[in-house]
Amino acid sequence: MNLPAANNRAASAHEVLKLVREICPPLAAERVSLPHAAGRMLREPVSAPEDQPPFARSSVDGFAVRLDDTAARFRVVDEIRAGDWKPRQLQPGEAVRIATGGALPGDGLQVVMREDAEREGEFVSFSRRDSERNIRFRGEDAHTRQILVEPGIPLRPGTLGLLASVGCTLPLVTKLPRVLHLATGNEIVPPEETPQSGQIRDSNSTLVRAFLDQWRIQPTQLRVPEDEAAARTALESSARESDLILVSGGASVGEHDFTRHLLEQIGFTIHISKTTARPGKPLIVAQHGNKVAFGLPGNPLAHFVCLNLYVRAALDAFVGRPVASAFQTGVLLTELHADGNARETFWPAQWGLRDGVATLTPLRWSSSGDLTSLASANALIRVPVSAERLERSGWVEFISTEISS
Amino acid sequence: MNLPAANNRAASAHEVLKLVREICPPLAAERVSLPHAAGRMLREPVSAPEDQPPFARSSVDGFAVRLDDTAARFRVVDEIRAGDWKPRQLQPGEAVRIATGGALPGDGLQVVMREDAEREGEFVSFSRRDSERNIRFRGEDAHTRQILVEPGIPLRPGTLGLLASVGCTLPLVTKLPRVLHLATGNEIVPPEETPQSGQIRDSNSTLVRAFLDQWRIQPTQLRVPEDEAAARTALESSARESDLILVSGGASVGEHDFTRHLLEQIGFTIHISKTTARPGKPLIVAQHGNKVAFGLPGNPLAHFVCLNLYVRAALDAFVGRPVASAFQTGVLLTELHADGNARETFWPAQWGLRDGVATLTPLRWSSSGDLTSLASANALIRVPVSAERLERSGWVEFISTEISS
Repeated sequence: MNLPAANNRAASAHEVLKLVREICPPLAAERVSLPHAAGRMLREPVSAPEDQPPFARSSVDGFAVRLDDTAARFRVVDEIRAGDWKPRQLQPGEAVRIATGGALPGDGLQVVMREDAEREGEFVSFSRRDSERNIRFRGEDAHTRQILVEPGIPLRPGTLGLLASVGCTLPLVTKLPRVLHLATGNEIVPPEETPQSGQIRDSNSTLVRAFLDQWRIQPTQLRVPEDEAAARTALESSARESDLILVSGGASVGEHDFTRHLLEQIGFTIHISKTTARPGKPLIVAQHGNKVAFGLPGNPLAHFVCLNLYVRAALDAFVGRPVASAFQTGVLLTELHADGNARETFWPAQWGLRDGVATLTPLRWSSSGDLTSLASANALIRVPVSAERLERSGWVEFISTEISS
Repeated sequence: MNLPAANNRAASAHEVLKLVREICPPLAAERVSLPHAAGRMLREPVSAPEDQPPFARSSVDGFAVRLDDTAARFRVVDEIRAGDWKPRQLQPGEAVRIATGGALPGDGLQVVMREDAEREGEFVSFSRRDSERNIRFRGEDAHTRQILVEPGIPLRPGTLGLLASVGCTLPLVTKLPRVLHLATGNEIVPPEETPQSGQIRDSNSTLVRAFLDQWRIQPTQLRVPEDEAAARTALESSARESDLILVSGGASVGEHDFTRHLLEQIGFTIHISKTTARPGKPLIVAQHGNKVAFGLPGNPLAHFVCLNLYVRAALDAFVGRPVASAFQTGVLLTELHADGNARETFWPAQWGLRDGVATLTPLRWSSSGDLTSLASANALIRVPVSAERLERSGWVEFISTEISS
């Protein structure tokens, strides 16, 4: 890709996404235990080490008898509980009491359900006996070495259960990126403090942490004064251990220049320094070897949009998740007044399924600092350049901000 | 509701869901820190403690001048960084250098962007000056005491950022249910062990843990031998501290009776002991005061279905999440051969959005122990009683097994 020269011109959202996917390398693989594998991307095929099920199992509580045995009454010669292993050759007129999950004692058998059986001492007879065998046969689900899970899928609860069932207790998955987050700015105070005149609470550290938590990434978070020497020291000591660096722009001396100089000083090349999209015009995307850094505009909604568009694309690329389908289409439930803005806009909205169709309700939004729309936004509608009005019931493009594994 | 008498007749999935919603009480509220509030249900309205923003802030880097000042050249009399508080009455011909986020020094001002300014020593002149004021005014987003977030919504990353911005750092949220999970059965061995003849690996403990992890619930998990005295001891000592008890059925002496007796012995009333739905026929739903217990059939796919249908409804009820929309409609991408089964069936499938429409691909599925469909299932299709074939391109009901906050 021809990188747009930094400072030269603003990049479109599409160009930023394309660049991000190119410069974020898929991370190495590691083995983790099943409890830590939730949501991670599998990097190896997982196969069955033995037939599944590994032996013929009864699927009901009942009595095993020979399939060819037409006796009216059977002598119960043994009892098999699940976990038992008692192979034997059943003779005509013999039955074995067997529990659900129990291993059948041999071949050519059928299990008659307990509900259809009448027990008298050591004998049993059946009120009803059809052709149903009530057996889960060896290898019915999968054969030895059959691949059960292909690489490249996220490990959901059901998949993890499958891995446990075949003894894959240390699956090979993509590493999670190590993320460093710096909140800069002399005007921000921790959210538990009361801001003085001219100050505001730092909300972006909370937003970034919760955003990354969806990937189970715990970032290293620092709140640094907008002092280039202090910030540089903080950054240099932590950046070495990071794959992804996020700097939430403080603003006291020109947030944009501050982050830019900071990143350049520690060796990053600035690929993008502004976008044509809103909110989030003063976005920085920088690279240093395998490390990628974002300078995020300080305003909360801009932060939210940049995280869900660009940083999400970076995380997807790092962990090797397909990103092709990030944008969806849906129907507008109410008109959207875009007022012909000259910049492509990502508009906070609520989406949901209604009668099988994705629907969108745009939220009230005034400025890029407007946090109130964040109370309920779970989507961003893409409003094209110069659109005056998007009509009710019309189709729009959107991206869901709900991340599930 | 008239509870179906246990043992009397099997309950439909619909009846089970209705009962579960009735017997699971919404749990009490508690205050938790923002990092622990992700995904939790908010139980109080959150309002702005002061106007948002709390003072007029510059939205750009630039120079503040009087709106009514038509001078060609201005003397720069001060510099305001974000975090500064320097009120002053600007005189005609005066400008103040101001950074993004900086507090305007007074009223009736405009900020001209730095890009349009030319600095010469202590003076500045503008190459371009339009009517744009570039100010986020005090109270533009919200006024003091205005409610920003209503109770009853899940705390997503954006909402958490909003809470931080107004200093709500210990939000009131619904408690999470304390869950006890017992895996019983003499045939199961931990997944890291090699099963002997007649044994299988315990996959349900992994499935249950990963399922609950989606709600950030960490269950107490015990693997107990199918010995009534041992299981009862384990259950009694832990049940006191639990709101929800899940027993994954072992099968060695009749899994169903085992769990049933166990629950009855410690004081539970059995409301439901089987369902007409498949997989998951031998489901137990029991209640003891505010505690609810499920006996889950041991087979993995039955487990998956019962967790995603019934246990999920219980969790939603406990935390006060609306459950109305759990079932969605979607379009089948391939024919589904249901073979006229007499029981309502929940069929593993993959769902996704295609051109704005929810689409479903049914997965290969042979028996209730068939784990292979779990590798990629993220939905369950409801197949009505006696349906022979669901046609391609036809509409079906489904439930997504993807949980997002």
